[in-house]
Amino acid sequence: MSITSHDVARLAGVSQPTVSRALRGDHRVSEATRTRVREAADALGYVPSEAGRSLATRSTHCVGVVVTDLTNPFYPHLIGPLHDTLEQHGYRMMLFAERSEAALETERLLDRSIDGVVLTTAVVGSALPAELVRRGVPFVFLNRETGTNHADAAVVDNEAGGRLVAEELLRLGHADIALIGGPADTTTGRDRELGFRVGLSEAGVGLPRRRVRQGPFDYDTGYAGLLDLWSDGPRPTAVFCGNDVIAIGAMNAARRLGLDIPGELTVIGFDDLPMASWETFDLTTVRHDLDGMAKAAADLLVERLSGTAPDLASRRTVFTPALVPRGTHAAR
Amino acid sequence: MSITSHDVARLAGVSQPTVSRALRGDHRVSEATRTRVREAADALGYVPSEAGRSLATRSTHCVGVVVTDLTNPFYPHLIGPLHDTLEQHGYRMMLFAERSEAALETERLLDRSIDGVVLTTAVVGSALPAELVRRGVPFVFLNRETGTNHADAAVVDNEAGGRLVAEELLRLGHADIALIGGPADTTTGRDRELGFRVGLSEAGVGLPRRRVRQGPFDYDTGYAGLLDLWSDGPRPTAVFCGNDVIAIGAMNAARRLGLDIPGELTVIGFDDLPMASWETFDLTTVRHDLDGMAKAAADLLVERLSGTAPDLASRRTVFTPALVPRGTHAAR
Repeated sequence: MSITSHDVARLAGVSQPTVSRALRGDHRVSEATRTRVREAADALGYVPSEAGRSLATRSTHCVGVVVTDLTNPFYPHLIGPLHDTLEQHGYRMMLFAERSEAALETERLLDRSIDGVVLTTAVVGSALPAELVRRGVPFVFLNRETGTNHADAAVVDNEAGGRLVAEELLRLGHADIALIGGPADTTTGRDRELGFRVGLSEAGVGLPRRRVRQGPFDYDTGYAGLLDLWSDGPRPTAVFCGNDVIAIGAMNAARRLGLDIPGELTVIGFDDLPMASWETFDLTTVRHDLDGMAKAAADLLVERLSGTAPDLASRRTVFTPALVPRGTHAAR
Repeated sequence: MSITSHDVARLAGVSQPTVSRALRGDHRVSEATRTRVREAADALGYVPSEAGRSLATRSTHCVGVVVTDLTNPFYPHLIGPLHDTLEQHGYRMMLFAERSEAALETERLLDRSIDGVVLTTAVVGSALPAELVRRGVPFVFLNRETGTNHADAAVVDNEAGGRLVAEELLRLGHADIALIGGPADTTTGRDRELGFRVGLSEAGVGLPRRRVRQGPFDYDTGYAGLLDLWSDGPRPTAVFCGNDVIAIGAMNAARRLGLDIPGELTVIGFDDLPMASWETFDLTTVRHDLDGMAKAAADLLVERLSGTAPDLASRRTVFTPALVPRGTHAAR
């Protein structure tokens, strides 16, 4: 950490400002001098300080990405394409992995060490988006929104997805239907349930409270949810799970109960993660373009940061879901 | 991004240097003034710039973490505890997710926007560690090493783990044994194979080349590896997989082939990821303390960065593995 631009200047026989200009590729410095400076910098192992550059330009070229639990198999599928798209545009990714959304490191997101934020963990009523607006930090919602803030967003039409599942279950003749859904304070949890309910309701089929279980979008929610549905009251012939991870938890609980899927129970998920297509699960689910959604969010944010976004208060890119029929659904 | 410490100074009626001192909690500034400055900063939504602070202290309090493919279920289990441990010590995590290790953004790791690096992707012969040494950037190996650089490391005794699996298979009477291993240029791939081979060999059992398949530590390696072993030559009664993700790929291929596990084939993995214990897999595997290993790596690095490390050239924390018997192994 001890090599400075002054050392490079000494070795190259130029002034310190010339070193800075040469390494920036400034054409006021001759080609020969630029080469000499670069060679001197290489010889000394000198790399310009990003901290110094960011003070000069007021930009850090770093984007904060807020996720909850990275060990949930869902998040890595957003983070991979986000990272790659941001990198293509010259931005690095700083990860804010929150175990508890309440403990969000707001201060760190706001201390100007990042240019903008991708929010994947928004819940209805989150305070963070409003705070980002107040501080003038650009951000984009990815996958989840607050439902009240009007900001750039890349999301799925979750309501349409829930309705697709309802229509499929009705077509198969199911009437005793259950839901193991995500949290009610997430737009993904709420809108998938809403579309599902409306689809069933229009066909005259209800979804009573005793047939609904809810929890975080994780394995345990599905596992505990199915055991609970089975121990309590009349059993359903089909269960819609709020995402694939919940569905896989439910399928493992079904295995523990000795239930045949789809003979005794139809299970349908949401997301079409790669593991949904593994032989062991062969899960019927709702596919959407996870990769495309993550890229769209990165693009929306980068356009804001670079000032190339169209002059609109906010833009929303909505992806259309589709049912992927595999091996976990059957006629009643 | 437009509020500066000068604005806060104006509102609080103090000088700009006083604002900086007050917000740092400097006791040369009276309690009353500190309160006034904090209130002014809050009212304006001002947060001190980390870029400014880092130029002053030459520290960015940011650690780079290099991973390959985040969608591999293994990595998130390292990144979660790494993030939390670094955060406890006041460091943020910048993620360098490389699809190809050759394309490693070396420049970005070296441009002084980070204080230190956690390497999880080292391969035998990696150039990066030597370059980090040359530039004086502290780093730690996590899970994988290069085998040649003597740097701080938190790793598993992979050789002992491979030997445990050999001993178990021999105890069960297997003699036709296959390996679907990780890459030979990783210490995890190499040492697990080595221990496995030595264990078998000491009992007079060979592991001929036609019974070995190798590839990245991912699902496809296991899936394609098992299909290939089955299509070619005499079939094994047991297969040791280089990690759980490979084992799960192999189990899915076994399902496609209609093979009964463990009746017709014993499968053993390595890592004991949470999904290994799911009912659908119930995978016999080698457990090690993933969480503890990630924390140990973060601690080793933080001690280097804060100058509290003992005066040693390098330290190596080695975790002991143990066999976890579940449902995928049986006597021949």
